[in-house]
Amino acid sequence: MTSVKVKTSTREHMVDVTKQIQAEVKNSGVATGICTVFCPHTTAGVTLQENSDPDVKADMIQSLSRIVPREGHRHAEGNSDAHIKSSLIGHSVTMFVENRKLVLGSWQAVFFCEFDGPRERNLLVRVIAG
Amino acid sequence: MTSVKVKTSTREHMVDVTKQIQAEVKNSGVATGICTVFCPHTTAGVTLQENSDPDVKADMIQSLSRIVPREGHRHAEGNSDAHIKSSLIGHSVTMFVENRKLVLGSWQAVFFCEFDGPRERNLLVRVIAG
Amino acid sequence: MTSVKVKTSTREHMVDVTKQIQAEVKNSGVATGICTVFCPHTTAGVTLQENSDPDVKADMIQSLSRIVPREGHRHAEGNSDAHIKSSLIGHSVTMFVENRKLVLGSWQAVFFCEFDGPRERNLLVRVIAG
Repeated sequence: MTSVKVKTSTREHMVDVTKQIQAEVKNSGVATGICTVFCPHTTAGVTLQENSDPDVKADMIQSLSRIVPREGHRHAEGNSDAHIKSSLIGHSVTMFVENRKLVLGSWQAVFFCEFDGPRERNLLVRVIAG
Repeated sequence: MTSVKVKTSTREHMVDVTKQIQAEVKNSGVATGICTVFCPHTTAGVTLQENSDPDVKADMIQSLSRIVPREGHRHAEGNSDAHIKSSLIGHSVTMFVENRKLVLGSWQAVFFCEFDGPRERNLLVRVIAG
Repeated sequence: MTSVKVKTSTREHMVDVTKQIQAEVKNSGVATGICTVFCPHTTAGVTLQENSDPDVKADMIQSLSRIVPREGHRHAEGNSDAHIKSSLIGHSVTMFVENRKLVLGSWQAVFFCEFDGPRERNLLVRVIAG
């Protein structure tokens, strides 16, 4: 199990971490198997999305804020929206490894999704042969 | 593969099952690997969330009911909202195991999410070395 | 790793692929372990849902379109709604294998969820012993 550090610079922020995950896959020495990326935070998540047009990220952040407004919750810390978004996006993604590389669709990138930043965060990565 | 029983007492109910999952990890005898928790129901799900302030659970249940209202669907059983919430929250979470223990973030707990209770339900757990 | 082809015939379309995934599990020769289904697309996803009443699928498609309207986004391709739905539904589901068969709840079926069809798509499948 290894860890990838992520620094976010705004409250909501999608950070492309594909290169770092690919590096962990290569370092694992596993040629064929699965790679799970795990987000150990309750106000952030991990997803796969397109990274060619930055508008897709902007649209996703805006839509999530429309789906889960910041106001109208009880939790005294004032970040319930971030908790709920994190469970909607999810905390683990399992991908495949072939020829020591992550198998992704043509348009897929791995994104850390910050919903209560800016902060220093981390993702955990494990690669298993199989 | 083992099974964890969950009893829910209201229609929407988030139940912290972290201790039961940790016990299954310990019983598996696996020191290092992955642990997948699987929800075999179509009107319930599994997620990770904070369990220090119970308001987070209340806010999540309320938000999900705002996102997917109970009325306005076709399905004659009248629980389409529960089906849709279950797919939004998801049915599997894969976590890591180190030193015979589940690796969770400081604030993370594993929650069974009931959307059509009260019922007796179960979660399936498998731990794989790797 | 194997691939399952899926042909969708409308813009939003949930296709039951349970039989194809069961066939891949059987072909893998693995008696006991895990099976991960991975969606390599950014405007589609994979989920588990009921397939006895087709109204459940219709309600889910309609609800998702209410949660993420097609209009009001920046992305010039005009399919931001499909990108966002794909991240809400998710791109990987991990299930268990026992006696060379996928373990599913009584009402569960595996669905490919198209949000920007009609298209020819594929799902990736890997079965690992454990």
